[in-house]
Amino acid sequence: MKAKSLVMKLQPETVETIRWGSDSSDSRVAGNPENAVVRLIDQTCLPTSVVYLDLTTVEEVWQAIKRLSVRGAPAIGIAAAYGVCLACRSEPQKPAFEILHACRQAADYLATSRPTAVNLFWALDRMRARLDQIETECHSDQTQAAAAAWVLHQLWPTAKQIHEDDRRMCHAIGRVGADLLPDGAQVLTHCNAGGLATSEYGTALSVFFTAQDQGKRLHVYVDETRPLLQGARLTAWELMQRHVECTLICDNMAAHVMATRHVDAVIVGADRIAANGDSANKIGTYNLAVLANFHRIPFYIAAPSSTFDLSITSGAEIPIEERNANEITQCQGIALAPAGVSVYNPAFEVTPATLIEGIICEKGLIQPVTREQIEKVLEVV
Amino acid sequence: MKAKSLVMKLQPETVETIRWGSDSSDSRVAGNPENAVVRLIDQTCLPTSVVYLDLTTVEEVWQAIKRLSVRGAPAIGIAAAYGVCLACRSEPQKPAFEILHACRQAADYLATSRPTAVNLFWALDRMRARLDQIETECHSDQTQAAAAAWVLHQLWPTAKQIHEDDRRMCHAIGRVGADLLPDGAQVLTHCNAGGLATSEYGTALSVFFTAQDQGKRLHVYVDETRPLLQGARLTAWELMQRHVECTLICDNMAAHVMATRHVDAVIVGADRIAANGDSANKIGTYNLAVLANFHRIPFYIAAPSSTFDLSITSGAEIPIEERNANEITQCQGIALAPAGVSVYNPAFEVTPATLIEGIICEKGLIQPVTREQIEKVLEVV
Repeated sequence: MKAKSLVMKLQPETVETIRWGSDSSDSRVAGNPENAVVRLIDQTCLPTSVVYLDLTTVEEVWQAIKRLSVRGAPAIGIAAAYGVCLACRSEPQKPAFEILHACRQAADYLATSRPTAVNLFWALDRMRARLDQIETECHSDQTQAAAAAWVLHQLWPTAKQIHEDDRRMCHAIGRVGADLLPDGAQVLTHCNAGGLATSEYGTALSVFFTAQDQGKRLHVYVDETRPLLQGARLTAWELMQRHVECTLICDNMAAHVMATRHVDAVIVGADRIAANGDSANKIGTYNLAVLANFHRIPFYIAAPSSTFDLSITSGAEIPIEERNANEITQCQGIALAPAGVSVYNPAFEVTPATLIEGIICEKGLIQPVTREQIEKVLEVV
Repeated sequence: MKAKSLVMKLQPETVETIRWGSDSSDSRVAGNPENAVVRLIDQTCLPTSVVYLDLTTVEEVWQAIKRLSVRGAPAIGIAAAYGVCLACRSEPQKPAFEILHACRQAADYLATSRPTAVNLFWALDRMRARLDQIETECHSDQTQAAAAAWVLHQLWPTAKQIHEDDRRMCHAIGRVGADLLPDGAQVLTHCNAGGLATSEYGTALSVFFTAQDQGKRLHVYVDETRPLLQGARLTAWELMQRHVECTLICDNMAAHVMATRHVDAVIVGADRIAANGDSANKIGTYNLAVLANFHRIPFYIAAPSSTFDLSITSGAEIPIEERNANEITQCQGIALAPAGVSVYNPAFEVTPATLIEGIICEKGLIQPVTREQIEKVLEVV
C-alpha cells in the first residue's frame, strides 16, 4: 500500500517534520487506533515541492525511512517510535497481548530500515521498554474490542515524549553551541542537521538559529552534500526560511573557502558517536574535519546524548551503510555517468575524535573529546 | 550562427578531441579557406551522446570554449590556434594584410574566452608570432583572390604543429609518470586530464594509459568533480573506453577512500603553474592535496611545459574564473536548490607547491617542486 501524499503551500512557521495525526493537538486521534496516522514532510521532494505523507502502516514508515523521505538521526528515531504505535492500527480485533506482540515485531522490523544512526535503536529501545511495562499492566478486563485503543493509549505518550524530549534537546544544544560563535561569525556546515533532521531547530542548525535569536549576525557556507544534496535541498532551504545569510558551495570547494575566506568554525551533526568520541556522520564529514585541522579551524559535532553509543569503544565498530550506485550516476532519471560504471557509495564515514574540537550536546560542551570527558558530561556512572 | 552538429556512433579507437577539417589527412581542406572547419567532440553531451561540432567561425570557437564543449587546458589552446585560422575564411575577398589583421583580432578575442588556463595564451602567442613572420613574407604579388588561401597555407601548419607537439608531449608525460606507479597501483584522479582535455592520451590519464601499455595493472578512483561532473562524464568514460579498471566516487568520498582503502598516489592535471610551482587546477584539487598530505599519499601534477607561466612568481597572481550559479543549482533544467539561493562557484583553485610531491612534465619529473628545480627541468636559461 502506498502512503497518501498531500501537496501543501508552505508557511515557514508551520514546518513540522513529523506529526502524529493530522493535528498534533487532537487527542481523539491519539486515542483512536483507526485514525492513527504519522504525517511527515517528504524530504525527497524539497525544495521544489512541499509534500506531506500520511503513513498508516509500519511498512509505510519503514519505506519512508529507507528511501529518505524522513532522514536525520533524531528524526528517524521519532518516526520509528510513532511507527511502532501504528502496529495497534493493524490489529484492531486482537487481544492486548497479540497487539503488544505486533508492536514488538514492528520495533524489530523498523530497526532494519537503516544501520548507522543509533538514535533509531535508542528510540526503539525506549518503545520496547514501555511495551514491557504495558504488558505488566495488562489485565484480563482489556476486552478485544477495546484492546487496540487501550494499548495505543498506553504506548503513544512514550513516542510523544521522545518527540518532545528531542525538541527540548535541540534548543539546549543551540544554547550550548551559540556561546561558541562571535557576532559576525562565518561558519560552514555539511548535510542537514536542522529541523528536518529532528523535531524543530535541529542540532548543528540549532546553534545557528539560536545565535541568530540572540541577535548575532551569521554567514553560513552550506556544502551541497553529494550525492543526495541534503545541503542544497534542505539546509539552504531551512536557513533561507529563517532568513539566515547563507552561501551554497559544492563539497569540493570547502578547502578553497577555508584558505581564501575567513571561516570561524565547522559545525555538523552526527549519526552515532562511540565511547571514545569517534563520530559517524554523512559522507564528506571526515573530509571537512581533515581540512579544518589543516586550516586550524575548530571542527564541532552537535548531537544529543541519544546519539552516543557507549557500547562501542571506537568508530571502527560502527556499521557504514552503502547505498545504491544510481544515487551517484543519475539525477531524476538523467544519466550523469557512463552506463555500467563501477561506483562506491558509502552514505556515512567516521571522523576520529582527535579531529573534533568539541561535541555540542544538550548536557553541555564536551571538550576535549575523550572518553573521560564524554562520561563526565553525559553523567555516566 | 550556430555550429553544425553531427551525432555519430563512436569507435573508441577513433576518438579525436579536435580535428582540422572533416578528415585531418585531407590537404585540400587545409589549403582552401572555404572548406576550413574545426571539428570537435562536444564534451557537454558526453557520455550519453557523442556529438561532433563543425565550427566555421571564430565566434563559434569562442562559444565552444566558453560553454565547455571543448575544455582542458591543452585542448583549449589547440582549439584556439585552429580558431585563429578560421579568420581567413571570414575575409576571402580581402588583401593579405587585412586578413592578417583579422587573424590578430581573432587571437585577441579568443584569449577572452577563459581566464585561468595559460595554455590558451601560450598557443595564441605562438600563432601571433607566426602572424608576424607571415607579415614579413607577405609580398605585393599576393593578389586579393588568392590572399586568404595563401595566409591560411602559411598559418595553418603552426596550429597543426601545436596539435602535434601536444600529442608528443602527452606520450612523454605518460612515460615519465608511469615510472612512478608499481604494478597493481591504486590511484585517484580529479576532473578530466585525459585525451578529451588534450590531443590524445592526456596528461594525468596518459600516466595511467602508458602504465597499462607497459603491462601494469591499475585501479583508478575517479572523483565525479562537481559541479560539471567532468570526472563522471569524461574521465570514467575514457578509462572505460580503454578498459582501465575504475571506480566512480563523489568528491567528498576521497578522504574516506584514502583512510580505508589503499591509495598509492593522486595524479591530476593543471591549468597554470607559477614559477614557484603553485598550480591552478579544477576546483577540488587543493582539497585533494590537503587530504593526500594528511594521509601521506604523494600528490602529483601532470602537465606539459606549456602550462608553466614563469612570468608570475606565485599562485596568488593566477586569476580564478567564477562561473554561473546555475551550474550548481540546476541539472539539465531540474532545480537542485531553493530558488534565489546565494552561490559561490569558483571553477579553479590554487594548490601550493608545498603540497605537491612532483610535477610530471614531458621534459622530466620536477621533484622537489621548487623554482630552481622547475627552471632546471624546463631548461630555462
